[in-house]
Amino acid sequence: MSKGLPKRSEDYSLWYNELVKRADLAENSAVRGCMVIKPYGFSIWEKMQAELDRMFKETGHTNAYFPLFIPKSYLSKEASHVEGFAKECAVVTHYRLKNAEDGSGVIVDPEAKLEEELIVRPTSETVIWSTYKNWIQSYRDLPLLINQWANVVRWEMRTRLFLRTAEFLWQEGHTAHATAEEAKAETLQMMQVYAQFAEEFMALPVIRGRKTENERFAGADDTLCIEAMMQDGKALQAGTSHFLGQNFAKAFDVKFATKEGGLDYVWGTSWGVSTRLMGALIMAHSDDNGLVLPPKLAPNQVVIVPIYRGEAELEAISEKAKEIMMALRSKGISVKFDDRDTHKPGWKFAEYELKGVPVRIAMGPRDLENGTIEIARRDTLTKETFQLSEMPVEEKISSLLEEIQKSIFEKALSFRKEMTTEVNSWEEFQQVLDQKGGFVSAHWDGTSETEDKIKELTKATIRCIPLDRKEESGACVFSGKPSEGRVYFAKAY
Amino acid sequence: MSKGLPKRSEDYSLWYNELVKRADLAENSAVRGCMVIKPYGFSIWEKMQAELDRMFKETGHTNAYFPLFIPKSYLSKEASHVEGFAKECAVVTHYRLKNAEDGSGVIVDPEAKLEEELIVRPTSETVIWSTYKNWIQSYRDLPLLINQWANVVRWEMRTRLFLRTAEFLWQEGHTAHATAEEAKAETLQMMQVYAQFAEEFMALPVIRGRKTENERFAGADDTLCIEAMMQDGKALQAGTSHFLGQNFAKAFDVKFATKEGGLDYVWGTSWGVSTRLMGALIMAHSDDNGLVLPPKLAPNQVVIVPIYRGEAELEAISEKAKEIMMALRSKGISVKFDDRDTHKPGWKFAEYELKGVPVRIAMGPRDLENGTIEIARRDTLTKETFQLSEMPVEEKISSLLEEIQKSIFEKALSFRKEMTTEVNSWEEFQQVLDQKGGFVSAHWDGTSETEDKIKELTKATIRCIPLDRKEESGACVFSGKPSEGRVYFAKAY
Repeated sequence: MSKGLPKRSEDYSLWYNELVKRADLAENSAVRGCMVIKPYGFSIWEKMQAELDRMFKETGHTNAYFPLFIPKSYLSKEASHVEGFAKECAVVTHYRLKNAEDGSGVIVDPEAKLEEELIVRPTSETVIWSTYKNWIQSYRDLPLLINQWANVVRWEMRTRLFLRTAEFLWQEGHTAHATAEEAKAETLQMMQVYAQFAEEFMALPVIRGRKTENERFAGADDTLCIEAMMQDGKALQAGTSHFLGQNFAKAFDVKFATKEGGLDYVWGTSWGVSTRLMGALIMAHSDDNGLVLPPKLAPNQVVIVPIYRGEAELEAISEKAKEIMMALRSKGISVKFDDRDTHKPGWKFAEYELKGVPVRIAMGPRDLENGTIEIARRDTLTKETFQLSEMPVEEKISSLLEEIQKSIFEKALSFRKEMTTEVNSWEEFQQVLDQKGGFVSAHWDGTSETEDKIKELTKATIRCIPLDRKEESGACVFSGKPSEGRVYFAKAY
Repeated sequence: MSKGLPKRSEDYSLWYNELVKRADLAENSAVRGCMVIKPYGFSIWEKMQAELDRMFKETGHTNAYFPLFIPKSYLSKEASHVEGFAKECAVVTHYRLKNAEDGSGVIVDPEAKLEEELIVRPTSETVIWSTYKNWIQSYRDLPLLINQWANVVRWEMRTRLFLRTAEFLWQEGHTAHATAEEAKAETLQMMQVYAQFAEEFMALPVIRGRKTENERFAGADDTLCIEAMMQDGKALQAGTSHFLGQNFAKAFDVKFATKEGGLDYVWGTSWGVSTRLMGALIMAHSDDNGLVLPPKLAPNQVVIVPIYRGEAELEAISEKAKEIMMALRSKGISVKFDDRDTHKPGWKFAEYELKGVPVRIAMGPRDLENGTIEIARRDTLTKETFQLSEMPVEEKISSLLEEIQKSIFEKALSFRKEMTTEVNSWEEFQQVLDQKGGFVSAHWDGTSETEDKIKELTKATIRCIPLDRKEESGACVFSGKPSEGRVYFAKAY
């Protein structure tokens, strides 16, 4: 039934790759590290985009578009920024091809060399702040609240569909403010928008936290993040929101006339989520039968499969099915009726399990006689027979979809709780990471040195300093030095 | 009032550039030929996207995403395709920067050279057909109806905001079919979708036509197009739809098992419109006071400007204004209330004229007393006093918006008629092109030779062979050789 999908317990990594391909989500292209997002995968991403875009607009942001290419010299203007990105930049050096003289095909025309090489944007702070310089003169021009949906390129050596690709799709918000306080509030707000999106729409519980200096965005003074737990016990950073201080304003000389008549550098933020969220969505909820989609992001929330022999049966079932579809659509539920005669019901059941359709309705001649339908839940793989006279079908399905959304979230939340372990000794730390994985909540002395050492020894990084952590003095699990509170360590994607 | 926008009659080109910048639509970036689409401009583009996307989905297409980069060797696989694009390709040759040894900043790391150079997509036929090879095995996999929203790069030497930029945003549909007939029907359908969009939403009358062999897309067997007339008498190609025959299927070896048990190459189409449509929208309708937007694409359809002295007056007007806003929004009309005290009403009037808001409502204390509002139309720059008791304000405005949409279209249509001249001699041809411009409807002998000669002598190209042209035998306006019907010549953007 599962079309031979590998089992999670046997090879999680292979299971993921196969699932992504077989559920028609994405595949590798001929260009190293660049993926093709297939129609079904893209329709899920479109639903994510629509919700996020709505949330950005509700918080006062507008969309704009900035160039794909960044002059090489721009990248260098912010010292730590260039250090963070220089090693993974795709560089455009020429702008023309010509026919090879030996007839071997086309070659790059050496005469069409660019005066200054261009970087394919790995992120757009530099090109955007160079533009903001012209847009901002006075406090009246602030705040500037802009978002961009775009593709970006980071030349990664080891890639993985959705999780780490050379080219990916994302949104990047870039805002400018008159005060540090306002910019910090924006940074926090956008992290909360991401957290709300992850929990309400992706059914993905996340830890709201702050990155350590080591893990901070290149060019930021502070990075907030949301961190999620995958089914294999590895953490995944699902979104980040950066307080940029005045770093980019200084690098690009963006000053504004203050209300008080002075002149000051502008304060900035940037924040982004990417198609990586697709990876998180898949890894967090899916099972050995395929994808499990939260109803709020499912392109089709319901599929109706008729079970019939011959035209007459199909016709009678279709009539009833169309009634049900009308009723569901009146409630804004998306529904597909699969009456293809080229595939058997069993094949269709497996197919929609693989594709993660939250609710499957099956109807045969007996159901017609009895006034029933069979309702199957994708998340629990359970079935029930529903008497149509019991209540309007749209109410039944609507509350079932809500229940599924909630239940997927709860399942992920209790898994995360189970996979979060407080440890108080180095031995315990290593043991938990080795044998169980998940988040390890431990005291840390606050130094990069310790953090590096732990990473070197265990491959675990500090995922974040949780924003809601309680003050608790203790001793660093590694160095024994004093600590003010626990942080989350984990191996991560 | 017009903030000193240059006049169309004095310098059309300067008028356009200034309008695009001052109305916050777009501006040039530091990277040659790449533009920044500013928030207001982008919000118009988003409205275009939303309508087009809906139309594509209604005609059975789904979105997907393919890589930005194309291996150089792919581009060469279709001979006429590479010939059409090789000269304007941005080429990625390296993937890393490093610090210069002399401390002069970052340089391209020569050791990080790509084995095969990558082209930044100028269009995606090659990368998509190389993918389709794996997606298509049998007639059951057809038709494949996919669209992509993406950025593309063509290294143009002379650029112009929206009209011709090195990077631009577009959508590109790429479909695969079992028969030539089906692919031709798709080609025609998508051209009609574009024409409908241009006329209904952009209020832009277009000629539906076929390109001559000279002007055909590189790699196509047939190119259909929509052509529009700008206010300076130059034509603008607003969208194209290509019948690709089996050219790309052969280049990428995409075969399918037919229903009859044979094996055949797949038939293809591709079709696209781009941010160039923004240029067409601006050039077709705007005037010396600024942008004129058709209501269906205006981010704000109505703006309400209060005219007041002191808090008490503002408060009374605001209350009424909010009532009106509620009423308008209940009809789906987008409305903005500009009660900023930092700017005077006259400044606001000029600003919203510049930005092309279709309807402006002004309200002062006298209006409150009399139960009236002042309604100003952007397209005609006319005003009327409206008695609120006459009819519900939402009905008044709703029918006014419809009238404006229609009236903008009619105006453009009668301008185009005026600017379309039938000529029957070479002398007349040259004279009309020189002194009047516009479309010149003339007989042509059907040869590329004559077409090239005419272009060389007059800079006019054949915009299209209109699909609805009547059979009419005549003599070619240039060569005197026999012709089967008239075609449209024009100087074009």
